[in-house]
Amino acid sequence: MENKVKHVYRELLERSRDNIVLGSAQSVIHWDMETTMPPSAVEQRSLQLELLSRIGHQMSTNPEIGKLLRQVQTNPKYSELGKPEKRNVYLINKNYLEQISLPEKLVAEMAKQETVTVNIWKRAKAKKDYGLLKFELKKLFELNMQAAEILMDVKQVKTPYEALIDQFEPKMTTHRITEAFDKLQDGLRLLLNKIQEADKCSENKVLCQPVTVEVQRQISQLITQTLGYDTASPAANGRIDETEHPFTSGSYQDVRITTHYYVDDYTNSIFSVLHEAGHALYELNVNPEWRYQPIGSTCSYGIHESQSRFYENIIGRSKEFWTYFLPKLQKITPVLTETKIENFVHAINRVERSKIRIKADEITYNLHIIIRYEIERDLFGEKISIDELPQVWNEKYAKYLGVKINDDTEGVMQDTHWYSGLFGYFPSYALGNIYSGQITNALTEALPNWRNQLAQGKLKEINNWLKENIHHSSNLYDPEELIKNVTGKILDPQPFLQYLQNKFRENEV
Amino acid sequence: MENKVKHVYRELLERSRDNIVLGSAQSVIHWDMETTMPPSAVEQRSLQLELLSRIGHQMSTNPEIGKLLRQVQTNPKYSELGKPEKRNVYLINKNYLEQISLPEKLVAEMAKQETVTVNIWKRAKAKKDYGLLKFELKKLFELNMQAAEILMDVKQVKTPYEALIDQFEPKMTTHRITEAFDKLQDGLRLLLNKIQEADKCSENKVLCQPVTVEVQRQISQLITQTLGYDTASPAANGRIDETEHPFTSGSYQDVRITTHYYVDDYTNSIFSVLHEAGHALYELNVNPEWRYQPIGSTCSYGIHESQSRFYENIIGRSKEFWTYFLPKLQKITPVLTETKIENFVHAINRVERSKIRIKADEITYNLHIIIRYEIERDLFGEKISIDELPQVWNEKYAKYLGVKINDDTEGVMQDTHWYSGLFGYFPSYALGNIYSGQITNALTEALPNWRNQLAQGKLKEINNWLKENIHHSSNLYDPEELIKNVTGKILDPQPFLQYLQNKFRENEV
Repeated sequence: MENKVKHVYRELLERSRDNIVLGSAQSVIHWDMETTMPPSAVEQRSLQLELLSRIGHQMSTNPEIGKLLRQVQTNPKYSELGKPEKRNVYLINKNYLEQISLPEKLVAEMAKQETVTVNIWKRAKAKKDYGLLKFELKKLFELNMQAAEILMDVKQVKTPYEALIDQFEPKMTTHRITEAFDKLQDGLRLLLNKIQEADKCSENKVLCQPVTVEVQRQISQLITQTLGYDTASPAANGRIDETEHPFTSGSYQDVRITTHYYVDDYTNSIFSVLHEAGHALYELNVNPEWRYQPIGSTCSYGIHESQSRFYENIIGRSKEFWTYFLPKLQKITPVLTETKIENFVHAINRVERSKIRIKADEITYNLHIIIRYEIERDLFGEKISIDELPQVWNEKYAKYLGVKINDDTEGVMQDTHWYSGLFGYFPSYALGNIYSGQITNALTEALPNWRNQLAQGKLKEINNWLKENIHHSSNLYDPEELIKNVTGKILDPQPFLQYLQNKFRENEV
Repeated sequence: MENKVKHVYRELLERSRDNIVLGSAQSVIHWDMETTMPPSAVEQRSLQLELLSRIGHQMSTNPEIGKLLRQVQTNPKYSELGKPEKRNVYLINKNYLEQISLPEKLVAEMAKQETVTVNIWKRAKAKKDYGLLKFELKKLFELNMQAAEILMDVKQVKTPYEALIDQFEPKMTTHRITEAFDKLQDGLRLLLNKIQEADKCSENKVLCQPVTVEVQRQISQLITQTLGYDTASPAANGRIDETEHPFTSGSYQDVRITTHYYVDDYTNSIFSVLHEAGHALYELNVNPEWRYQPIGSTCSYGIHESQSRFYENIIGRSKEFWTYFLPKLQKITPVLTETKIENFVHAINRVERSKIRIKADEITYNLHIIIRYEIERDLFGEKISIDELPQVWNEKYAKYLGVKINDDTEGVMQDTHWYSGLFGYFPSYALGNIYSGQITNALTEALPNWRNQLAQGKLKEINNWLKENIHHSSNLYDPEELIKNVTGKILDPQPFLQYLQNKFRENEV
């Protein structure tokens, strides 16, 4: 009988494996689309992606999977399976129930409406006219609401919005997020009031020095090498390419990042590369024994973001990192030869209440996210409508950040997420920051001198600690379970706030 | 009833379309593997390719296709379908019968044995030891023989070897090839005896000038631009990358070529790019109305090669092309400023009896192919064995080319084809040359002043003629049918021989 349960389990895993391999093939094709595809191939590419997602949907809704799941779960010896095996069964079951609950017609309509909406968003943004896209956005919202209402039951959550969040941050509730975000907001406000805001480039000439793309490419190589992300050796498992917007793509032994080089804003790419390399290290460090199994994936978007923001901010904007790295940078960037480390670290940590999320600093960034979270929550709570989005947006920006939005391009139309159908995604960014604070605390307890090591360019022990404690557990736990295992606490904004307070007081920014 | 046959036909086409789209997705993943894939991803990539080819096999052997085929073919109104529709049914039927006739186990074993053999070939070649790979090559040969014997019946051909050839050159018989190759060989011998062989670089210093990779990249762009293959504009349907061995990949709106830059041998890449761009233009010019249909593909490997060799040799090694192009080349390649066109054209047309196929000139290249063809034919005719290959190889090289093979690396192990399971592929190369001669004759009749146009860099009419007469008919005909439609004759080596005679007498090489 025990043999029977293991046999069925293995068969189940085989089928799931095909789906995971297919996903990794789709990821290559997506990467190609963003980086190397000739412009004329758009139509052909959409046919390829449509076919592969149709095949993927057929594979994951195959009734044979349901049969195998029942056979495993009702087997008297089921309880004798280990934690990883049970988690695999849980994840396959979750995905199967969700996939079969969504009518194929709805899935196809959503995919189509996403393409329509994101394209009209591009046009509307160029014309600075939210009115142009309202109608299509409403349709996309309604389709997402429909899907969310179906998924609510399967996921056993209380609201449609929580069903959407669960796609990115499994088992996270709006109650918990609201509580954490409220605390975070209070802390950030206090901190912000104490900080003298920076005067942009007039004060920070060091960031405006022109650096050629060729030199910036060398800098990228140097950064990934320092971080231990191999994009250059004959055994490389990564690579760096150039795209409009940076991203990380791939899994296991093939994880690629992209960046964008601006000649007059060379730190833009430096922090992009640090950020994406953080994502890449997480993917590469998934437990190799679990490759091509559901547990052999990353935990959640929030945990993913905690890793990217750890390397971008906690490492990358620290005085210690630049103690080691600035001299290296100066060697290949002669315009920076005279730069003093104090000025450089001060400059890259400038704080400023601004309008654009992706340009925001470590502190105000979270307020940008909290605004988006509150709007999404109220939108799917049917307290506000698509028509009211610009107005609500502008009011919140005035209230939380004290800035006046002049047109919707710098307001509600700035990010692609909603127009691409990614509702429930935004909270992950701030959750990532919060997690990164908790994780840094735990790291400091385990490795009290990590900052000294960092100042010598030694990231090995830091990397190893993250690998063992975060990356290696892969998808064995839901995010709050993982964070509790590692830090002893569930979601808690206090350590992140404390980190910010220490940092911005020390630096006297 | 007529509606019924069209309805079933369309359903059949839908299914076939999925298979073609899948193939084009596989092609992207293959391209990535050869160009941009991080080295560590080999294992992951093999899983992806294995899965996609398994899905493709399942799709193309789906019994539903057999059912639809029967419904179309037995429909009383079948005869009322047009030529393109009937050809689609024919091609779907052919593929279906072949796929279902091959046991899945055999297909899987062949795929596995190909990987094993090609890898041991690399090692054996490095160690200059044919003995190391004999055992695995024998296994691969036997599996191919098994498949060829099964396919013989389905394809209704007389020998296993013809079943293999049919994969690359549909309906071509060994009788016809042998006849044509014998004539070709006689003609080439006569020609060769009259030609003074070149003294390599001592006489042709112009080809040994160092040219940086950066400049060679500019040259590639200039060549593709001149040929009308768009790899650079914002509407580009192609691109150029760098790989160990040049190749062309893709279809329809996304056709990419690769090349290899050697600083001390800049014409190597020039002729590569001309060659691959010829392949690319053919793929891009497939009749757009037939995209994603079986007839919306290229005709055969031989016809494909006729296009690549037309652009590489008939265009690319002509005095007219260089009349236009040498001044352009000189502008970006100052080391060539003093070069006279006569010397340059003389140098790129040097003739030499040599050992390596891919380095051979326009004349002797065909003898390299004829040797391989005769060996393949006799191998699958069971007149020679795998053990005897090196000996037979060396004897033929001594006899046909008058060269002495010192070790198997420069002999039987030089090409990857056999070790990759590509038996029956080699003839296409010489068939391509023969076709290119016939096609050039037809072109000259239709466009008598094409060489004058070429001398002014005007390729538009030449391209259009090829597009309308060769590319646009796509896969509507088998190759000999196509060549008869275009030139009035079936396979005939005479025009190619005549072209060589004219050229090498004129140039007094």
